[in-house]
Amino acid sequence: MVLPELKLRRDRIRSLMAHQGIDAALIACNVNLLYTAGQIISGYLYLPLHTPARIFVKRPNTFTGELIHPIRKPEQIVEILQQEGLAIPQTIMLEGDELPYTEYNRLAALFPDAKVVNGTPIIRKARSIKTEMEIEMFRRSGIAHTKAYNEIPSVYRPGMTDLELSIEIERLMRLHGCLGIFRTFGQSMEIFMGSLLAGDNGAIPSPYDFALGGKGIDPALPVGVAGKVIEEGQSIMVDYGGNFNGYMGDMTRVFSIGKLPEEAYAAHQTCIDIQEKVIAMACPGVTCEELYDAAIEMVTQAGFADNFMGMGQKARFIGHGVGLQINEPPVLAPRNKLELEAGMVFALEPKIVLPRIGPVGIENTWAVTNNSTEKMTRCEERIIDLLNPDQIQ
Amino acid sequence: MVLPELKLRRDRIRSLMAHQGIDAALIACNVNLLYTAGQIISGYLYLPLHTPARIFVKRPNTFTGELIHPIRKPEQIVEILQQEGLAIPQTIMLEGDELPYTEYNRLAALFPDAKVVNGTPIIRKARSIKTEMEIEMFRRSGIAHTKAYNEIPSVYRPGMTDLELSIEIERLMRLHGCLGIFRTFGQSMEIFMGSLLAGDNGAIPSPYDFALGGKGIDPALPVGVAGKVIEEGQSIMVDYGGNFNGYMGDMTRVFSIGKLPEEAYAAHQTCIDIQEKVIAMACPGVTCEELYDAAIEMVTQAGFADNFMGMGQKARFIGHGVGLQINEPPVLAPRNKLELEAGMVFALEPKIVLPRIGPVGIENTWAVTNNSTEKMTRCEERIIDLLNPDQIQ
Repeated sequence: MVLPELKLRRDRIRSLMAHQGIDAALIACNVNLLYTAGQIISGYLYLPLHTPARIFVKRPNTFTGELIHPIRKPEQIVEILQQEGLAIPQTIMLEGDELPYTEYNRLAALFPDAKVVNGTPIIRKARSIKTEMEIEMFRRSGIAHTKAYNEIPSVYRPGMTDLELSIEIERLMRLHGCLGIFRTFGQSMEIFMGSLLAGDNGAIPSPYDFALGGKGIDPALPVGVAGKVIEEGQSIMVDYGGNFNGYMGDMTRVFSIGKLPEEAYAAHQTCIDIQEKVIAMACPGVTCEELYDAAIEMVTQAGFADNFMGMGQKARFIGHGVGLQINEPPVLAPRNKLELEAGMVFALEPKIVLPRIGPVGIENTWAVTNNSTEKMTRCEERIIDLLNPDQIQ
Repeated sequence: MVLPELKLRRDRIRSLMAHQGIDAALIACNVNLLYTAGQIISGYLYLPLHTPARIFVKRPNTFTGELIHPIRKPEQIVEILQQEGLAIPQTIMLEGDELPYTEYNRLAALFPDAKVVNGTPIIRKARSIKTEMEIEMFRRSGIAHTKAYNEIPSVYRPGMTDLELSIEIERLMRLHGCLGIFRTFGQSMEIFMGSLLAGDNGAIPSPYDFALGGKGIDPALPVGVAGKVIEEGQSIMVDYGGNFNGYMGDMTRVFSIGKLPEEAYAAHQTCIDIQEKVIAMACPGVTCEELYDAAIEMVTQAGFADNFMGMGQKARFIGHGVGLQINEPPVLAPRNKLELEAGMVFALEPKIVLPRIGPVGIENTWAVTNNSTEKMTRCEERIIDLLNPDQIQ
């Protein structure tokens, strides 16, 4: 990756560090290394406030260059800093919400005289405001994601199970360049490539923090498809992570087998109306809670509040930031007073689950611009009947 | 899952706790919850030494039962323990190598008067000795894994890229029941479903701690396929995680496009000979280093030492324990004096990378029995020519 881009990212982190009196960061987690070093390495990026970053690399041994130091273990870092005549920081930040407890302590022990603070909130805040290049990554990812979804009707065969259809969609995503891996922050959102929810499986709660759940096909991964034949009159919600270049774009579309009861189209339209309303409001300065509250007000007026964002177990958000991980700030949730800023990228996913029919709704990925938003995922939004994909209901 | 099985697993952990004077464990990480509670939940399993385990569950809200307490946040745990008349532990263990630093501290703060110790090594040690039911899971997983690999020749088309072939293999794995998700301990082994390495891509080092690397198709996941057309005279190593039921079985097989140079068959046979030798030695009481040293001695005699387990960057192990994660004890590595025990399950993967040809070798999953081993992955071991799959070279 070009150095000016990396410098821009590092300077975003530095600027937040400076505000909190932090002299240096030692970055060790994969996605944060990807963000600051431009690729994943096994090693560390040392980011001082006023001097250039240094990279300490264990693997691959082919990752070499100026200011890149090969090491075997992190204990060599301080010795190299001293050899290079660099100051040892008085306050250093480590990835406290991401590094395991013992690893954090091992790295903290490298700087016995320093004050060690949790740097995860700073790095996540820096990452939440995307650079122009990152937004371009989302644009490209959205195009590939759209192409894959456009082919979904071509892989449906009557009598398929939800699992079989999901396997064909996974294949389409991969053929269009999806890397497959689904990166999350923390362990609350574990999934394979995404989720396909048909019929009443859309109402089954999961242990995870997704908008909806699903039974899953094994207790080892209780989320998503249930392994059941998809039946006529059911809606099918397709929600796969669009990781085509490291950036986790997010898009949901709904399909049906045959015509659904009118209620389904009404509920779906309510979600599209909510999207329109929320996006009309979304610009720098608006708070997450204002967007959330607007959605709740609309869905309540439309009479679908009880079925909004799940049934027995409800998700308490209508959208979430996306980036190198699927769950980044901003979270569009009640009481979240965080203001949108230009450069934030978020997925907005109003969804309604209807008994005996299944889930309907919409999800797109949006970048916040200086005065409005840009849509990254441009794909037909009506419910598409897999038996008659070209017919408008 | 049946309660006697869960009791068996919990008692394995308890027995190790007792040896170290630990009164209770608070388990919060997904795979350890899967192990001790039988399914993944969002919550905690509290495991006291002498009284039955309690489960504190945030999600799903359908996970209810005796000794299961719904909570919103972990701070409620101690209050409930007191209400139930349970003793507050004097020494408690938390998953120190797995929980993020801040989460560990939050849980430790629930027990301000207790000594808090790192329980990860104990839980991983307990998990490394599989129960009969877990070994049966590996047996079933091995059968499905074998069926999927048997179909690989049927999906190859001349002119395919390594990526295209890998997508078809992923689909076969999924159709045979693979859950897809690839669970690892730590962040040193991040991958999609597994790896396919053709030709010289097998020699490209990665940041990860796999036996071999590969360039990958994006800096966001620098491992595995390179997106290049597979050419005649190249070997293709197929190494996918066999997660069909939570247990990460592991199997590698090698294919070719046309006949390979004789050297490739000789190197492949060396790996099979190493497997035979190591497995003949493998039984309770033998140390990991003895197995590793035997492999190194054989490959050195065969003249392939420089190409064993990678070229420029070499893996310093010939095998690894498998279980709910792909990288468990025992690690078959130099200077590892850990002795094999009945119930351990490990993958043995001697591999040789040949310039201009590609990687050859073998990997199977083995359970240690009372006096020898049981093979879990029974699939043709010769190099199969994808142009003439039935022809014996």
